[in-house]
Amino acid sequence: MAPKKVTIIGSGNWGSAIARIVGSTTKAYPDLFDPEVRMWVFEEIVNGEKLSEVINTRHENIKYLPGKILPTNVVAVTDLVESCAGSNILVFVVPHQFVKGICEKLIGKIPSDSQAISLIKGVSTQKKGGLKLISEEIRDILKIEVSVLMGANLAPEVANDNFCEATIGSKRKAQDGPLLKKLFHTENFRINVVEDAHTVELCGALKNIVACAAGFTDGLGYGDNTKAAVIRLGLMETTKFVEHYYPGSNLQTFFESCGIADLITTCYGGRNRKVCEAFVKTGKPMDVIEKELLNGQSAQGPLTAEEVYLMTQKTGVDSKFPLFTAVHKICKGEMKPAELIDCLRNHPEHL
Amino acid sequence: MAPKKVTIIGSGNWGSAIARIVGSTTKAYPDLFDPEVRMWVFEEIVNGEKLSEVINTRHENIKYLPGKILPTNVVAVTDLVESCAGSNILVFVVPHQFVKGICEKLIGKIPSDSQAISLIKGVSTQKKGGLKLISEEIRDILKIEVSVLMGANLAPEVANDNFCEATIGSKRKAQDGPLLKKLFHTENFRINVVEDAHTVELCGALKNIVACAAGFTDGLGYGDNTKAAVIRLGLMETTKFVEHYYPGSNLQTFFESCGIADLITTCYGGRNRKVCEAFVKTGKPMDVIEKELLNGQSAQGPLTAEEVYLMTQKTGVDSKFPLFTAVHKICKGEMKPAELIDCLRNHPEHL
Repeated sequence: MAPKKVTIIGSGNWGSAIARIVGSTTKAYPDLFDPEVRMWVFEEIVNGEKLSEVINTRHENIKYLPGKILPTNVVAVTDLVESCAGSNILVFVVPHQFVKGICEKLIGKIPSDSQAISLIKGVSTQKKGGLKLISEEIRDILKIEVSVLMGANLAPEVANDNFCEATIGSKRKAQDGPLLKKLFHTENFRINVVEDAHTVELCGALKNIVACAAGFTDGLGYGDNTKAAVIRLGLMETTKFVEHYYPGSNLQTFFESCGIADLITTCYGGRNRKVCEAFVKTGKPMDVIEKELLNGQSAQGPLTAEEVYLMTQKTGVDSKFPLFTAVHKICKGEMKPAELIDCLRNHPEHL
Repeated sequence: MAPKKVTIIGSGNWGSAIARIVGSTTKAYPDLFDPEVRMWVFEEIVNGEKLSEVINTRHENIKYLPGKILPTNVVAVTDLVESCAGSNILVFVVPHQFVKGICEKLIGKIPSDSQAISLIKGVSTQKKGGLKLISEEIRDILKIEVSVLMGANLAPEVANDNFCEATIGSKRKAQDGPLLKKLFHTENFRINVVEDAHTVELCGALKNIVACAAGFTDGLGYGDNTKAAVIRLGLMETTKFVEHYYPGSNLQTFFESCGIADLITTCYGGRNRKVCEAFVKTGKPMDVIEKELLNGQSAQGPLTAEEVYLMTQKTGVDSKFPLFTAVHKICKGEMKPAELIDCLRNHPEHL
């Protein structure tokens, strides 16, 4: 088998952190991987210099991961099609709203036996209130196998080589699992591979809704007990949601890093929590808070809560997910944050 | 059926907080419960007054829960046997080292069809390295049915009527569950009852070991990713431990408040975490730290870690619990805190 060519599609904070890992593993296993890792970079001018040129000469993403050196075998390529040409493994790590456009540009431009792995936490926006996973979107457009990697992985800490874990979900675990594990598993980034890919991906998306609820309770001044109850009830709704829409999930998967570990990290250290705490404390609308705290980027939680609400409402089960529903309504200003706890008091879990 | 007489054995911080709940539910259901709730108080002189008299006149435990009014139907009784005479439900909420002595004094002094419920988080100390649950100790001495109540319940927050959840584990769920739920379930203290009582109780005991590990990582300066990994691996060892020594546990029980929720609360807000963080940062021995931070009380985590280590070592499985084992050795000064992460790098969960 020829060594696999790897392309990282994306070069933000998380993409750059993962490039440090993939750059090191591809060098460590030259029989398995082509050591040249191409990274698609959306060209920007930073302090008068082209970002791609800075990456290729000084090996630092000065805009999204300043201060951290990228391995020299990670090569920035600004043309998307060129970056993926002949590539066997495509690592998707871009904001979810760009996935569709990127995939459409790649149709017919990549080997038909390529595979993808998505590191994107979120769901695809559907016009008619359906819900589509990012992996499904990539698979549908490019007709290739798609795995996912999720976990308790705040990017700055991964870039600092702090010990952490992550979960790969691969429907072809036996066939693809060992190679994908080799691509990401390092001394400080410990990978478990499971077959239950839908669950892995949904954990990554839905946790952001739970983090909003945790942020609301923080903003309301509740303590650790209440927050723990909210996190637990959010996890229960996550398991129910997965079971309802993707039956046959494995309960054990929720114990992986993609499950409880990522949920904890996100509900304590993530930006959805932070934005929602400020939303309660300041009383400003969500989009204003996002502008103030996230430099104009959107938080994933409110978006995902809306997608999920459209889906559960359409299928008549929104009342089974009182926490998810409340988060959506609070974000939209249709419900007061203080009413969150009332919704939880008669949660189906307590019956 | 005559209304049940309830006695709370213990009047510390948690005992007083739970007395506020039990005092209110017994009043609310006079057909089910005798509204007079006796609370055994170990007599102390506080500011020149007898604690029991202050409780019975001003309805406040000025030493252990100052500022919170106890229901007037909660009556302090300083004689243990008198407090339990004729009682149908004994609520145990004392430090675990007092359980044996208390039970021995009650032999033959309570109705033979009484039942107990233990709110004590810990395991019983055995001389020969075995491990005994508190519920088993009560059951063995008094020959009565024993349930447990555990959950994410930091006492001061429960006393503030903050919304939270708790789990009752009752082996006779169908028979005893409804009554016990009525005794503890309030608007802000939400109870689920499960049959898997061993798991509920072990979650309550073992989480303190995990909290020590979380405290070590905090002390070492690691971030949220690492802490989440430590919490997750600690939970995995908890599930393995329960399955090894009490086969047949239900994985779902770990999703109850007694499981992940209490674990989260303890690893972020609890005193074991705090003590272990200070242990790393100051380099002082554990007993000195405990004296400084806990007014001479002991943290449960190091004690439980020792009991668990004696048990796993005796049965030859200590290597299957690298986190539990490391916590014990670090507390004893036999291993450096920084080595904790090395132990986790090759955790059986990653194979």
